[in-house]
Amino acid sequence: MRSVEQATEVVRWCRRLATFSEAPGETTRRFLTKPMREVHTALATWMARVGMAVRVDAIGNIHGIYPPEVSATPATAPRLFIGSHLDTVPNAGAFDGILGVVMGVALVEMVGSKRFPFAIEVVGFSDEEGVRFGTPFLGSHALAGSFDMSQLDLRDGQGRSLREVIRDFGLEPGRIPDAQAPPTAIGYFEFHIEQGPVLENLNLPLAVVDVIAGQSRAAVTFTGSSGHAGTTPMKLRKDALAGAAAWIMEVEREAISTQGLVATVGSIEVEPGAGNVIAGRAVLSLDVRHPADQMRKAALERLRKAAEEIAGRRGLEVGWESRLDQGSVPMDQTLASMLDRAIEQAGFPAHRLTSGAGHDAMVVASRMPSAMMFLRCQNGISHHPAENVREDDVAAALDAGVKFLDEIARVPRG
Amino acid sequence: MRSVEQATEVVRWCRRLATFSEAPGETTRRFLTKPMREVHTALATWMARVGMAVRVDAIGNIHGIYPPEVSATPATAPRLFIGSHLDTVPNAGAFDGILGVVMGVALVEMVGSKRFPFAIEVVGFSDEEGVRFGTPFLGSHALAGSFDMSQLDLRDGQGRSLREVIRDFGLEPGRIPDAQAPPTAIGYFEFHIEQGPVLENLNLPLAVVDVIAGQSRAAVTFTGSSGHAGTTPMKLRKDALAGAAAWIMEVEREAISTQGLVATVGSIEVEPGAGNVIAGRAVLSLDVRHPADQMRKAALERLRKAAEEIAGRRGLEVGWESRLDQGSVPMDQTLASMLDRAIEQAGFPAHRLTSGAGHDAMVVASRMPSAMMFLRCQNGISHHPAENVREDDVAAALDAGVKFLDEIARVPRG
Repeated sequence: MRSVEQATEVVRWCRRLATFSEAPGETTRRFLTKPMREVHTALATWMARVGMAVRVDAIGNIHGIYPPEVSATPATAPRLFIGSHLDTVPNAGAFDGILGVVMGVALVEMVGSKRFPFAIEVVGFSDEEGVRFGTPFLGSHALAGSFDMSQLDLRDGQGRSLREVIRDFGLEPGRIPDAQAPPTAIGYFEFHIEQGPVLENLNLPLAVVDVIAGQSRAAVTFTGSSGHAGTTPMKLRKDALAGAAAWIMEVEREAISTQGLVATVGSIEVEPGAGNVIAGRAVLSLDVRHPADQMRKAALERLRKAAEEIAGRRGLEVGWESRLDQGSVPMDQTLASMLDRAIEQAGFPAHRLTSGAGHDAMVVASRMPSAMMFLRCQNGISHHPAENVREDDVAAALDAGVKFLDEIARVPRG
Repeated sequence: MRSVEQATEVVRWCRRLATFSEAPGETTRRFLTKPMREVHTALATWMARVGMAVRVDAIGNIHGIYPPEVSATPATAPRLFIGSHLDTVPNAGAFDGILGVVMGVALVEMVGSKRFPFAIEVVGFSDEEGVRFGTPFLGSHALAGSFDMSQLDLRDGQGRSLREVIRDFGLEPGRIPDAQAPPTAIGYFEFHIEQGPVLENLNLPLAVVDVIAGQSRAAVTFTGSSGHAGTTPMKLRKDALAGAAAWIMEVEREAISTQGLVATVGSIEVEPGAGNVIAGRAVLSLDVRHPADQMRKAALERLRKAAEEIAGRRGLEVGWESRLDQGSVPMDQTLASMLDRAIEQAGFPAHRLTSGAGHDAMVVASRMPSAMMFLRCQNGISHHPAENVREDDVAAALDAGVKFLDEIARVPRG
């Protein structure tokens, strides 16, 4: 089968699965909801057709296992995982997550009846976005063996526990530990849309992920004094919003001047928030990411100091509440180099990218060597109905995927 | 009667009238609500006791007329108005507005049986804040003869028209034109708390208002592109909040560098407003005030240009919607000079201030010479339950008020 035809099929599959939604006219598919079962059913049919054994584990991940070459013993043969997630954010696009699962099955279909010295296990994770229970990566944590069983008591917006929701889906929460990958696992590979504008700006179809950036989040509060906008002279003001604005400028300056750093203030709330009243309080979000943890922490420290200096100069108080401090996760460099070669063999330039977003590969990496390939994303738009990929980029990724399987097959084992 | 004792009475009256409220435990008293009638009843009793003839006009302003010296013909004698407003903002303090009415009556009481070559008409306006019908100065517009009768169709939050509300209070809306001041009016004088921190910072009890500043308001929108905070490199961003912050800095710089200008961004809303998403849109309020209209307009123009320059540099769009453009209103300089002298005669330094806030005097000034005296305001706080005045400042204002009446009495008339 030619990759261009298969790419058309991949996009068609993604668009079709996007119609399996909790809300009509949009794509919203949270952990173990009814449309996720519809996705399971559709994928299971396809997986079985291409020769895979299908099962659903206790956290609701779907698995399609393509057996190794006949000379291998299935139970002890090495196993390569290919996957991504089936759940979506509210009002999502058609490609985030699901593309990686569909491409796994499509890749197996493309190689036809060819077998490898390893089994291929395509996995569709039941939760990565964390929308339903407020905590992400439920599916990949189960595969990685790092699922925290106390999370079974978490409740969704309707007050239903994770335990109940799993049971209602016909699964046994007590068996989640059995969902972890076997010792025969040799690696995990994930196709994913970039969710950013870099490849489009470089005019490249594909990239290999080097590292998933670490991130820090904080809530930063400037407190001054509210006052009448008409009667309070400038020099007697303690304007919390003016202080916040000065600091937002610092955040931007810091990120621009630090190679590889992104830093964002995406939300701001001021009190009292009236046009004719000086703001007495401003609460801002901070999101800082860098592939190197030391660089991230040093930037964070400088931004904290800048907030204090600005507050000191302006007679404001500053509050700093850390909300997240997550280390970076490097991808496996052996697999990444094999991906570079596979992309070049498919006729495209190899390019490395840092992933600024979190992915299942970040969690699975604690269990086995993991690698990711990014596909160019139209206008860098993701988490939005306008999310889109180009069919020729999908074809390129499929070609590179086939080469990647051949690369792995060539590695001597014993 | 000594001014220090009368000052204690004034504060006691204000505190007592503050308990006449629409909501228990706070002071909220909108136009022609039940507690406003209670205020009328209480003030009418006091006014009558000190020898005033009391009436309520068709817009609900209460008037207490203290007759001129017996040699004068009451109907043709000159008339000095002293007043302020009886309505409040929601959850108000005890002094904004009502202090000026209470001090008018207290002043008449203080002079005992002394009469002047003019009548004194103390007026308590039924609406200055504009909370109930969304438009301010209903009371003073009636006195000034500038009431717009089409406003009778305005509706309050409960859907009741201004006409109905006036009728239900027992008044005849058709007679509002009769509420205008007679041709014998020689001036309007208003005591008011400063509602700002200037006098406290100068350690002065009183000031004479020079001019009520003009003001401009606008809604300013920066539009960029929202995007993923982790995957969008700094140089590919069109961050609406970063652009807004740069402009807030310009607003502050402009105000600091322009003598007499105050400029405030008091509200900001960003979309989508999530910590991990670059802001695609930011909507800000702008409030600019200056005693000289040309200076205000020039500053506004510079700020508009600055917004466009910032937007241009950052690949953003900027939108500018003018919301208010109100000229400054100078107070009568003859009356203001008499007030200066009265304050000095009472033993305090004369000081002139610009009023950054609007007041009834601004509206009445179109009808007759108008003047205002500001009293120091504790911590500059107003429109808040913590609003406070010092009794010795009230005593100083009463002393100056007596001297002011004597000053006016000395003016030759014919």
